[in-house]
Amino acid sequence: MSKFDYPLASWARTTKTSSMQEMLSLSAKPNLTLFGLGLPNPNLFPNKLLAEISTEMLQESQNVLQYGPSSGALKTHISQLMSLRGADVAEENVFLTSGAQQGIQLLVRLLIDSGDTVLIEETIYTGFQQLLEPFKPKIVTVPTDPVHGMDVDAVEDLLRKGVRPSFIYCIPNGHNPLGYNLTLEKRKKLVSLASHYHVPIIEDDPYGFLHYEQANLPPLVSFDQDWVLYVGSFSKILAPGVRMGWVVAPLWLVEKLAIIKEANDINTTSFSQQLVTRFIDKGYLQSHIQLLCTEYRERRNTMINALEEHLGSFGSWETPGNGMFVWLKLSPEINTTQLFKESIDCAQVAYLPGESFSVIAKADDKNSMRLNFSYNDHDQIQSGIRRLANLIKQKHGVTVS
Amino acid sequence: MSKFDYPLASWARTTKTSSMQEMLSLSAKPNLTLFGLGLPNPNLFPNKLLAEISTEMLQESQNVLQYGPSSGALKTHISQLMSLRGADVAEENVFLTSGAQQGIQLLVRLLIDSGDTVLIEETIYTGFQQLLEPFKPKIVTVPTDPVHGMDVDAVEDLLRKGVRPSFIYCIPNGHNPLGYNLTLEKRKKLVSLASHYHVPIIEDDPYGFLHYEQANLPPLVSFDQDWVLYVGSFSKILAPGVRMGWVVAPLWLVEKLAIIKEANDINTTSFSQQLVTRFIDKGYLQSHIQLLCTEYRERRNTMINALEEHLGSFGSWETPGNGMFVWLKLSPEINTTQLFKESIDCAQVAYLPGESFSVIAKADDKNSMRLNFSYNDHDQIQSGIRRLANLIKQKHGVTVS
Repeated sequence: MSKFDYPLASWARTTKTSSMQEMLSLSAKPNLTLFGLGLPNPNLFPNKLLAEISTEMLQESQNVLQYGPSSGALKTHISQLMSLRGADVAEENVFLTSGAQQGIQLLVRLLIDSGDTVLIEETIYTGFQQLLEPFKPKIVTVPTDPVHGMDVDAVEDLLRKGVRPSFIYCIPNGHNPLGYNLTLEKRKKLVSLASHYHVPIIEDDPYGFLHYEQANLPPLVSFDQDWVLYVGSFSKILAPGVRMGWVVAPLWLVEKLAIIKEANDINTTSFSQQLVTRFIDKGYLQSHIQLLCTEYRERRNTMINALEEHLGSFGSWETPGNGMFVWLKLSPEINTTQLFKESIDCAQVAYLPGESFSVIAKADDKNSMRLNFSYNDHDQIQSGIRRLANLIKQKHGVTVS
Repeated sequence: MSKFDYPLASWARTTKTSSMQEMLSLSAKPNLTLFGLGLPNPNLFPNKLLAEISTEMLQESQNVLQYGPSSGALKTHISQLMSLRGADVAEENVFLTSGAQQGIQLLVRLLIDSGDTVLIEETIYTGFQQLLEPFKPKIVTVPTDPVHGMDVDAVEDLLRKGVRPSFIYCIPNGHNPLGYNLTLEKRKKLVSLASHYHVPIIEDDPYGFLHYEQANLPPLVSFDQDWVLYVGSFSKILAPGVRMGWVVAPLWLVEKLAIIKEANDINTTSFSQQLVTRFIDKGYLQSHIQLLCTEYRERRNTMINALEEHLGSFGSWETPGNGMFVWLKLSPEINTTQLFKESIDCAQVAYLPGESFSVIAKADDKNSMRLNFSYNDHDQIQSGIRRLANLIKQKHGVTVS
């Protein structure tokens, strides 16, 4: 039997393994400092509390092991969580998913037919590009960079010229991979464009609750609940291993999400739903998020300080106000995709090359990399950046001891 | 804002809530005897063992809460499980999913383009019909019934005449909804047709391990691992609440499944993966399956006896050798879709009307219903069937006390 005898969907004939998937495999390699993935710090997981809760709920209820509808109590909790961000969301507009990725995927499936147009930034989260692939959409891009973020004026130009995408995709907080926070002015403008031109926005917001400066800007959905479809996640503020996320959408769209979700995987793990619900019932979540903000702020600072110390004259970066990522830009002669293997083998450091995130060939991405600061502890961050910096300096002909 | 202003995928404009979804909502109604859904008996869930295991694993490992690759240990266990069914499956051919539904959905997405042809029985699992909807495939059907099962000669006729579906969908054990087991001869013939005409079979096998007679026929995949794509599940043999299933497929297809799965929902809940792995590590699964076979065999017998006693001259049925369902056929004047509301309100019994499963308008389905015997305990089965029988007898003008 040859695989070429197989009937396959046309898009499936040419799929390739993602760089993220390859990184996940590498993460098993010992002695490697992993800056490449958007992983939470495992030492901060509330294992002990979750062990108590899982025992308690398995003793009290058979339903945690059954099929079941979405937890109303969890939707209430999410509605309250959203109000902390300045968004007044009714429970009926909350839809539970197996993590944010599923939320985005279900929305995309509902919004586009094969070959439709979508509007995204020219540098964006690989997992989003990957989920677009089966639809072979016409992709229209706008400029973006770690300093200014998404170019909302460019969005306006396109819409004014008559481009009508099925949606605009946006990560306004702790952008993946660029780390920026969209300004308040740009947020308001983007939302008013969406409403005026009747183009929905998918707001991907896994990092909105992880903020390191005094003010945390409100999400796009706080300005408009008709044209902003919000996607949230417990992966970064509790644990990815439970696969729990949510969508905020108009009621008629929530009903369609329910239909497609059932066809996808029946329902979201009852066990996880109950685990998260009880964790919040007991009042643990808010203090846990505060702990994460403190711990990740310190790790961010450690990484920024290490970059200052070791790469001050060989690279540039911004200090992110939210999220898990620093976007490090090197000089044009350093191709980070080419440097990758050497970085793993010689510096024992894994990062994600900027080019992995390029939607269009973009020179700036080729000499950039995404560095995660949440996963490692302080000494690993310091020594990892030092080893990475030494490798980069060697490429510049600098002798390092 | 009107929803009609929204850009939507063309198929999504006309979606309707499934009858299964409506039944799930009804299941919350008190005092209702629920024969309508394919639910395991909650009193048989191994809550105590799972509580011990979840505590243990949360104490021992942070990884259960992290993102992570599929568990190799679990794939080894599944390979061994498959060998109990007579299928010699390598670990590398096992792919983990969030329940069987996701496995089927991912396979379908890989195999068909919009508008392609698929070959299915004229009466089949609603959840499968639902997941086909976004693809708007050309559906070719073959006859089926609870006595003879899928008409494999009709499959042969179609293939010989040049029909080339992207796949054939088949539930050979404890068929949903008809309850039949496909004969050994038909299994072999179907697989040889698939291999000869290069048409893959999706073998949906959630009920294969739940068998009530001495012999349990081998799954289709035991005869051919190139052209049979097997989908298994822990939902019926352990707990649906953990959402764990698997696919057995050729390696090159497993690689494609990994790509599409990552775009779908990153990975299957690490917590659930570990919970199931440790449950099997400790040797609990095989005795649990034996317990379920014993308990469900008795419940099946209770339901068959109650049907004999109360509906002997008003209906017909087969005794299923596997699974969770009895297909009850009534006389042509009883339309089970019309009877449904009365059954809920007056008899306090919920079933799923035969018509829900019809792919083509089929007279036999209109006066049939699917009854589940796994969910309820014996007294509920007996009293539920008695009340349902009384309602049906009244429709025939028989006075019941």
